[in-house]
Amino acid sequence: MKRLESTPLADGYRMPGEFEPHAGTWILWPERPDNWRLGAKPAQQAFVDVAAAIAAFEPVTVGVSAAQYDNAAAALPANVRVVELSNNDSWVRDCGPTFVKNAAGDVRGIDWEFNAWGGLVDGLYFPWDKDDQVARKICEIERACSYRTTGFVLEGGSIHVDGEGTLYTTEECLLSEGRNPGLTREEIEETLRQYLAIEKVIWLKNGIYLDETNGHVDNICCVVRPGVVLLAWTDDTDDPQYEISAQNLEILQNTTDAKGRAIEVIKLPLPKPILITAQEAGGVDAVEGTLPRCEGDRLAASYVNFYIANGAIIAPCFDDPNDAVAAQVLAEAFPDRKVVQVYAREILLGGGNIHCITQQQPE
Amino acid sequence: MKRLESTPLADGYRMPGEFEPHAGTWILWPERPDNWRLGAKPAQQAFVDVAAAIAAFEPVTVGVSAAQYDNAAAALPANVRVVELSNNDSWVRDCGPTFVKNAAGDVRGIDWEFNAWGGLVDGLYFPWDKDDQVARKICEIERACSYRTTGFVLEGGSIHVDGEGTLYTTEECLLSEGRNPGLTREEIEETLRQYLAIEKVIWLKNGIYLDETNGHVDNICCVVRPGVVLLAWTDDTDDPQYEISAQNLEILQNTTDAKGRAIEVIKLPLPKPILITAQEAGGVDAVEGTLPRCEGDRLAASYVNFYIANGAIIAPCFDDPNDAVAAQVLAEAFPDRKVVQVYAREILLGGGNIHCITQQQPE
Repeated sequence: MKRLESTPLADGYRMPGEFEPHAGTWILWPERPDNWRLGAKPAQQAFVDVAAAIAAFEPVTVGVSAAQYDNAAAALPANVRVVELSNNDSWVRDCGPTFVKNAAGDVRGIDWEFNAWGGLVDGLYFPWDKDDQVARKICEIERACSYRTTGFVLEGGSIHVDGEGTLYTTEECLLSEGRNPGLTREEIEETLRQYLAIEKVIWLKNGIYLDETNGHVDNICCVVRPGVVLLAWTDDTDDPQYEISAQNLEILQNTTDAKGRAIEVIKLPLPKPILITAQEAGGVDAVEGTLPRCEGDRLAASYVNFYIANGAIIAPCFDDPNDAVAAQVLAEAFPDRKVVQVYAREILLGGGNIHCITQQQPE
Repeated sequence: MKRLESTPLADGYRMPGEFEPHAGTWILWPERPDNWRLGAKPAQQAFVDVAAAIAAFEPVTVGVSAAQYDNAAAALPANVRVVELSNNDSWVRDCGPTFVKNAAGDVRGIDWEFNAWGGLVDGLYFPWDKDDQVARKICEIERACSYRTTGFVLEGGSIHVDGEGTLYTTEECLLSEGRNPGLTREEIEETLRQYLAIEKVIWLKNGIYLDETNGHVDNICCVVRPGVVLLAWTDDTDDPQYEISAQNLEILQNTTDAKGRAIEVIKLPLPKPILITAQEAGGVDAVEGTLPRCEGDRLAASYVNFYIANGAIIAPCFDDPNDAVAAQVLAEAFPDRKVVQVYAREILLGGGNIHCITQQQPE
């Protein structure tokens, strides 16, 4: 299918909000034993749980390497489509396409350059060549033309949009040394404007404490609907997370979105700190060049890392007292959607959560 | 997607004739250097020519290994869809699904067991595990349910149907030791009836002289429309091919099809014998277990090995005086279709031709 040299803005395309109707969801199958413990078997079960939960609401496609194809197809429910799709790891939010849509309803994909969250500066593994092909391959399967942003690195998890001209991101990530060190903040804003048809960027400072993605926004703050966001929150002033969330709250309370609206912030409490156990750390292969998983390391757990499906919220839970509180906050924020919680510790152990392993394709 | 335990016949599905309308065409990208000379580069160009020729008439998807993905995508025209699809070699006619259709227009796929044209008896290479996954993977991409025929080996190139209950095949192939040695002719007929909803099998004897597929019917005889077939022909009584074609002609002239019609046979002349050159043989890697390509070997060249696309016939030519004769015969046999010839020596060198490298998906 066509690779386009123009930009979505020039062609009349914009990125819809995640809460707008979907044609379906993309997921990649976890496999690498240097990130997922016990040969990725527990993670695979968690991914199956997520895929099955979403598939009750919209079509799901799971991309998987040739080596794992039969295994994934056997484990996934029959209403999930399974396609061969090589990858270095399973974070389709970040290596997959960002879909854009025009007024006629045509859908195209943006194939951002991907460098494993920081390339040779502070990337999480090497190489990332297969990941960088994922966006194009998904677009081809869907017969969607794609825009390739050679020289501009971005992961889908580092941005959230409201579909009406506002983009939320973090300075920690988008201004990091490992992405686009040669570009100024203004040049980055202009690129986002050209590709996503947004008019205003709201710059939060930092993401969740110790988030290995350089603070992806999708783990700390997300859009409920235009003018309303959820912010990961703790009242524990001794927790390093407190200052991070408080600073972001202040930013949100002192700005307006692209339409000039004040932003309503709903606080979503965090679970208690979750640490990697010795047993969990022991199940991960040690490979030079891949971020190690060590006993006692605090994981970047957050209830904000959920997925908005057609008619549903597919949200992580952690066997934590705040699971019920999070479910309640989400139910109130999304009164027209069913909140489905999936136990997600195994996904968290790999460095992300449900939003990170999903990518929506607009209707 | 669903794997079905029933049969197409029981579910109201039949195999349409190739001349019925298509949703599109599948092709696999050639790659293996022990079958395709010079690292498969000349063959890749020939496959591009075929894909481009078909894409002028209907959508084309090319499946390709991860390793060759970028190269295939760069070489193919922009209106061709490129999807990752591991394979052992590039004969989607034989390892791909046979699509069936019901009265409502729903399409499903048959995932025949595949064993590289004879398995450990006289198969052409080892292993064939990736080829055997191709049919299912294509069905999954198309969101088509599939029937798996565990214990029944068949290649799509070994059958032709008229869409009205008649199937043409050869004894040389379907009764070969390497396919289903435990099944009688009657049991094979019953399986074909159950899966393709056919009522009568017309058994030709042998395929083209020295055809390494054990005489696939699609290289010697094909259906123009119900009641009319093309038969590869030579008038040279000294050619071993003469007896083969004459015997098949006699069979066709002395039978009727499923609807009781006498069968009109149109003779399609063969090109002069085509032999592998020393240079060609020297470009192929020698690998234990793969059929070698030797200087002086006669290739199973035939004009019958063409593809029927929507509104077109995509036919091989060989820089032979009979190229023009073949074009004329095809134009008369298919007056409503445009005949497009593609120079196909490089495909022939790999052991097949245009029909072998294509698979139609019904509308």
